[in-house]
Amino acid sequence: MNRQPINLARKLDAFSDHWAPKIIAQMNDYHFKLVKFEGEFVWHAHADTDEVFLVLEGAMTIHFRDTDVSVGSGELFVVPKGVEHKTSAAAECRALIIERGGTVNTGQVVDAKTAPDDVWI
Amino acid sequence: MNRQPINLARKLDAFSDHWAPKIIAQMNDYHFKLVKFEGEFVWHAHADTDEVFLVLEGAMTIHFRDTDVSVGSGELFVVPKGVEHKTSAAAECRALIIERGGTVNTGQVVDAKTAPDDVWI
Repeated sequence: MNRQPINLARKLDAFSDHWAPKIIAQMNDYHFKLVKFEGEFVWHAHADTDEVFLVLEGAMTIHFRDTDVSVGSGELFVVPKGVEHKTSAAAECRALIIERGGTVNTGQVVDAKTAPDDVWI
Repeated sequence: MNRQPINLARKLDAFSDHWAPKIIAQMNDYHFKLVKFEGEFVWHAHADTDEVFLVLEGAMTIHFRDTDVSVGSGELFVVPKGVEHKTSAAAECRALIIERGGTVNTGQVVDAKTAPDDVWI
């Protein structure tokens, strides 16, 4: 067992690339990932898992085909499995993502923003 | 689908009792729960699930039989399944707990602090 807590700010300071989630913790078969967003992501869905975004700094928008949801610092949103969505952030947004391990950031889509799903920081 | 983000501070303002987790979101079969701690909890374990604590305000200690881990605001800790632990907080601590739905706060122990596992807020 790790004997140290995981400091989110310190982990966030350790990388600067956007759209590339970094795993910081595992709970059963779920991963906690830190990510920095800026600009616009790609439309995608995750067929077999809900996905949680908890915004730590800044603000993001989660676009759905029929609505947009603004998520600010200290706010959490659950994207239901199978629902197409796209994230965007006008300025850098720092968030914690919780989802099943092995979830690819772009879901079923392969894109320039598709990132490895197994990078720990 | 809920169209509103969940604001953690607003949810925390909506209750004042200690040691009684309130569910704010569900991801697959996992629950996100807000809790306020103050004082000392009871020794217990969760036989079939890891448990994540993310401290939002204040500080808590997670006691294990062989060590203590201090977890401050913005820090996260994963208590592995089956490992006996006890939480404490000298002053009120506000935390987000993530664990499998149906997890009882006192694990296998029945105590005055045993809380219902299905209260949403």
